[in-house]
Formats: sequence, C-alpha cells, structure tokens
Amino acid sequence: MSDTIIKKLKFDDKGLIAAVIQDVDNNEVLMLGYMNEEAVRRTLKGPYVTFWSRSRRKYWVKGETSGHTQEVKEIYFDCDQDALLIKVKQNIAACHEGYRTCFFRKIEGEDKPVKIVGQRLFDPEKKYNK
Amino acid sequence: MSDTIIKKLKFDDKGLIAAVIQDVDNNEVLMLGYMNEEAVRRTLKGPYVTFWSRSRRKYWVKGETSGHTQEVKEIYFDCDQDALLIKVKQNIAACHEGYRTCFFRKIEGEDKPVKIVGQRLFDPEKKYNK
Repeated sequence: MSDTIIKKLKFDDKGLIAAVIQDVDNNEVLMLGYMNEEAVRRTLKGPYVTFWSRSRRKYWVKGETSGHTQEVKEIYFDCDQDALLIKVKQNIAACHEGYRTCFFRKIEGEDKPVKIVGQRLFDPEKKYNK
Repeated sequence: MSDTIIKKLKFDDKGLIAAVIQDVDNNEVLMLGYMNEEAVRRTLKGPYVTFWSRSRRKYWVKGETSGHTQEVKEIYFDCDQDALLIKVKQNIAACHEGYRTCFFRKIEGEDKPVKIVGQRLFDPEKKYNK
C-alpha cells in the first residue's frame, strides 16, 4: 500500500525527490537530503530516515556510522508532489561539521562576511578521523 | 561583493540551487523553491524572495500577482553549499492551493489515506480564476 503514496510523488529526471528535514521539537530546519523511491519506502517503514547519497551512490541511513540518527516522526509532501518534509527526533547533531543544523552559516548582507551561528556539538576531526 | 557569496554556492547541472522557505515567526516550513544565480542575487537584494520557475522558465517574485509575498528576513546556506534556507515574513499564505504551507498533506502511514492538515486561508478558485 506504500506504493499508493509513492505513486503520488514526482521524482526528478535522476529519480530523486528532495526531503527537508526538520527538528520535531523546535522546528529548526536541519538539512536537505534526497531520496529515490526505495529510500522513501525505507523512511516510511522507519524508524530512521534513509537518504540516497548522490555522491556515494548508495543508501544512507543517516547516523548509521556516527550514531547521529534521525527518528522519523511526521512526513508531509507538498502541493506539487515533488518535495517531502520530514519531522524527526535528531540525535546530537545533523551536520557532519559538528553543528546541530547544516544551515549554520548566515549571509548577513552582500558586502558582509558570512557569520557562523550556533555552537559545535562535537569535533568532526575527533569523530571521523580516528 | 554579492558575487563572493554566490561563488561560494554550488548550483546543479541545471544551474539551480534549492531554497527552503521558512516562516520567521513560527518556524513553519512553507515551501521548497529553486533559484539560479540571478534569482539568488535578486533575493539578496530583497525585499522579496525571487525564484526561478522551472515550469514557466522565468523569474518569479513570489506573490507578484497574488500579493502573497515573502519578505526576506534571514538567509543561510548549508555545509555542502548546495542548499539555501530563507526565513521570511509570509503574507497570507505560501501555497497556491490556499494553505499557509505547501506541505499541507500528511502521510499517516503506509496503509492509511493522506490527511489534510491546516485550514484553507483563501479559495484558489476565486483567487486565480476570476
């Protein structure tokens, strides 16, 4: 029956759909990822968000190595049926650079330097380069 | 100097970058749109969000005909430099179907019907088909 939902969705010419990941607790936007049909199916089954990694060309259960999982809480799709919004329970941090959200760089203006917002929750050097 | 910011961003093979639009007041995710370099430049200048409409192949100042504008308040970009997060003051509603957010359909489960969440703030039949 999940095919009924999946058939409603429009995947692009690469077979992908964008998925906005939002913190279910404070509504912070954590990241934007991409899913193919099977990744959507796996995410619907849960308990964790599964993306299709465009760079590594494989399924990617977010947090499978880092432990920084995203537990699926609510799933929405948009009016054009070509984007998903997934509310998750985020463990520790979404960003591999150590920040809670991947959107940690703020554009302050055309002629101003980029501003880092938020605190690092872990040191990526220590986490990934052991 | 905005080119400095724009040069940091990675546009895809169609010259586009995804932009998550979020309500600055309540953090609701309103929509996902796409921008080319010039649309990013126009959005940086403000006051309103400008997309590149993939279907109509033209610049699209959101709300220019409906009045449902999105006033730019904060702009972020992500760790991969291939997505934007833009916090806006949304006038009336983001969705052309009359809902505040384009993500008004909730997937309740694999074997359950889609649930409409939220109330219509305007009737799209009356708004667009005069």
